[in-house]
Amino acid sequence: MEQLDQAERVKVDLGANSYDIVIGAGILPFLGQELSCYARQHGWGKQVMVISNPTVEALYGKQIVTSLSEAGFQPALALMQDGEQYKTMDSAMQLYDQALSLGLDRKSFILALGGGVVGDLAGFVASTYMRGIPFVQVPTTMLAQVDSSVGGKVAVNHPKGKNIIGAFYQPRLVWADVDVLKTLPAEELRAGLAEVIKYGLIWDGNFFDYLEKRFREILSLNQEDLREIVKQSCAIKAQVVAQDEREGGLRAILNLGHTFGHALEALTHYRAYRHGEAVAIGMVMACKVSGELGFLSAEELNRVTVVIRSFGLPVEDRNVAAQDILASMYHDKKAEAGKIKYVIPETIGRVRITSAIPEGLILRVLSS
Amino acid sequence: MEQLDQAERVKVDLGANSYDIVIGAGILPFLGQELSCYARQHGWGKQVMVISNPTVEALYGKQIVTSLSEAGFQPALALMQDGEQYKTMDSAMQLYDQALSLGLDRKSFILALGGGVVGDLAGFVASTYMRGIPFVQVPTTMLAQVDSSVGGKVAVNHPKGKNIIGAFYQPRLVWADVDVLKTLPAEELRAGLAEVIKYGLIWDGNFFDYLEKRFREILSLNQEDLREIVKQSCAIKAQVVAQDEREGGLRAILNLGHTFGHALEALTHYRAYRHGEAVAIGMVMACKVSGELGFLSAEELNRVTVVIRSFGLPVEDRNVAAQDILASMYHDKKAEAGKIKYVIPETIGRVRITSAIPEGLILRVLSS
Repeated sequence: MEQLDQAERVKVDLGANSYDIVIGAGILPFLGQELSCYARQHGWGKQVMVISNPTVEALYGKQIVTSLSEAGFQPALALMQDGEQYKTMDSAMQLYDQALSLGLDRKSFILALGGGVVGDLAGFVASTYMRGIPFVQVPTTMLAQVDSSVGGKVAVNHPKGKNIIGAFYQPRLVWADVDVLKTLPAEELRAGLAEVIKYGLIWDGNFFDYLEKRFREILSLNQEDLREIVKQSCAIKAQVVAQDEREGGLRAILNLGHTFGHALEALTHYRAYRHGEAVAIGMVMACKVSGELGFLSAEELNRVTVVIRSFGLPVEDRNVAAQDILASMYHDKKAEAGKIKYVIPETIGRVRITSAIPEGLILRVLSS
Repeated sequence: MEQLDQAERVKVDLGANSYDIVIGAGILPFLGQELSCYARQHGWGKQVMVISNPTVEALYGKQIVTSLSEAGFQPALALMQDGEQYKTMDSAMQLYDQALSLGLDRKSFILALGGGVVGDLAGFVASTYMRGIPFVQVPTTMLAQVDSSVGGKVAVNHPKGKNIIGAFYQPRLVWADVDVLKTLPAEELRAGLAEVIKYGLIWDGNFFDYLEKRFREILSLNQEDLREIVKQSCAIKAQVVAQDEREGGLRAILNLGHTFGHALEALTHYRAYRHGEAVAIGMVMACKVSGELGFLSAEELNRVTVVIRSFGLPVEDRNVAAQDILASMYHDKKAEAGKIKYVIPETIGRVRITSAIPEGLILRVLSS
C-alpha cells in the first residue's frame, strides 16, 4: 500500500464526466481494489473485458487479471494485434463480438491495457458498445501516460485517414504506473517525451526549465522524475481539456508541432518517424516560424532545439519537400474552411493560434 | 411563412445539448432558412450531407435539396438501401467514405431525411465522423416523428443484436412536417401510433382520453389532430429524456410494451410484426400483468385494448410460446445482472418499474 500512498492524483474537472488520473510507481497490483470502490459507488457489475495486445499482455496481463480477480471481478482478456494498422473498424467489430459472447451488459466495463493504439480502440468500443459502458485506462507507454489516455479522444482509423471515426468519451479512471516504462523500448520513451516538452512550451516555462536540467535523470528512468513529469503533463492537459472538452477553442494549443508533424508522418507513410519524433520536428518548425514573425528570440529557439536534442529527438527533416508538407496541412482534420490553424509559441510557456501566416514564410521555414 | 407561424416548437432541455423540435404542416420548404440561422449562430459551414433512402428521396429529396440550396448551403445526397437490414456498420463505412470524398469537415453537418432506420444510421455516422459533427433530423414516418428522432439514441445493428453499437448523441434540430405522413402506408402510420398510445399510458391520462375520442380523425390524417398528437408525444418524451439523458433511471418507462415486444420481434425474425405492432401486443401484456398484480382494473384493461384495436393494432400473439418469450427477455440489452426490468402500468397515465414479478405469473399471462 506504500506505493499507493505515494501516488499522485490529478483531477480532470469535466462536470458529470470528471475523473481521476492516478500516477505512481508500482501501483498496478492495487488497481483491482481501487476499482471495487468504483463498482460499489457507481453500481458497476463484475464483468470486465481487458483489451490489450500480445506484447503488453505478456508483460502485465497476469498482474492485471490477478488484481481484478482478487478484488472480486470476472476479467476476460481480449487481444488486438499490435500496431496502428490494426486500429480499424474490423478490429472493433471483433471486440464487439467478443463482448457479446462474454455477455457484457451495460454495467460491465472495459479496461485498456497498453499504449495509445490500444487505448483509442478500446475507448471507441467502450463508447459505442450498448451506447457506452464505463471505460478505464491503464496506459503502458510514455505517450499514453502523458497524452493519449487523458482527454477522452477515442477513435479508429479509416482507410482514407487516421482517427476519422471516433468520439469524445472520457474514461472513469486513468491508472498510470511509471514502473512499466522500464520495459518500454528507449526510442518509444523518447518519442513520448516530445509531448512532455510540448507541455512546457505551451503552458509552463518553469516545467520547461525543469526538463532542461533533469533530462539525464528522466532518460535513466529515475522514478521520482518520471512521476513528476507524468504528473505535470497530465495536470497541464487536464487544465486545457477542462476548459474545452470537445475541442472548440483552447484545446487547439495541444496541437503545437502536430500540424507539421501529421503532414510529415502522412507523407512518409508513417514509416520514417514515430509520432513523437514528427512532433519534435514540428515543434522546431513552429518555433522557427515564430522567430520569423518576431516572437521567439534566437536564444529561445536555441534552448528549444537543445532540449529536444538532449532527449534524443530529431529537430529537422530532410526527406520531404516543403510544397508537399504545405499541401498536406490543408487536408488536416483540424483545417476549417480551407484554412490551416497554426499553433505558434510567443515565448517559452505561451502559444497563440493563428491562420494569418503568409504561405511564403511557411515555405521559407520548411525549406531552410 | 404561414405554415411556419402555425408550427409548434417543443424544447428538449438538456443543458448544452438542448434542442428544438418544430412540428407543423407544410414546413419542409422552410427548413433551409431555419438552418441558415443555426449556421450563423453556431459557425456551421456550407456543406451538408443529406442521408436518405431511395423511397423517401423520390418523394421529398428535391424539396429538401432545393430548400437547402436556396438558403446558401451545398447539399449532397447520400442514399442507403431501404430497410432495417441495412442499418449496419457496412452502410456506415460507405457513408464515412462518401463524407470524406465530399470533403465534409468538422463544421459540416448531416441531415437525416427518413424514418427511424435512416435517422439511427445517419445519427451514428454524425456522432462518430471526426468525433462528432452537427446532426439534423427530418423524420418522415409517424414512428420517427413521435419517438426515434427525439432523445438522441443513434445506433447500427450487430449480427448478434439490434442497436448493439451506438451512442447517445442529440440532434441540433428536429423538423417534423406532418404533411409527409400522407405518403406513409396506412399500416406504417398505425404502427407508429402504438408509441403515441404508450405516451398516454405512461404519462398523461388526459392525452389517453383524447386518443380514445379522436382516433377516427387521427386515422384520416386531420392536420390539426396530427400536429396535436406529435406535439404531445414529443413533449412527453422531451420531459422524460430531460430528466434522464443516458437512460440511468426514469427513461426506462419509455420501454412500456418494449420488453415483451422486442422478444416477439426477435422470435419471429422481425417478419411477423412491425415494431409498433409488437409494442401494441407488449403493452396489452404489461396491462394484463398489472391486472394480475392488482393495479389496473378490468375496466381500465378493457379501455386499453379497445383503444389499441381502434387504431387497427393487434392486441395478442398466437405464434410464439410463452417460455420462448421469457427466455428471450432475459437477453434484452436492458436486462441487468440477469434480471428483467418490467414496466407495468399502475393506472392509465402512470407506470412503475420492477424486477420483482414471479416468473409463474408472467408465464400465465403470456399463455393466456
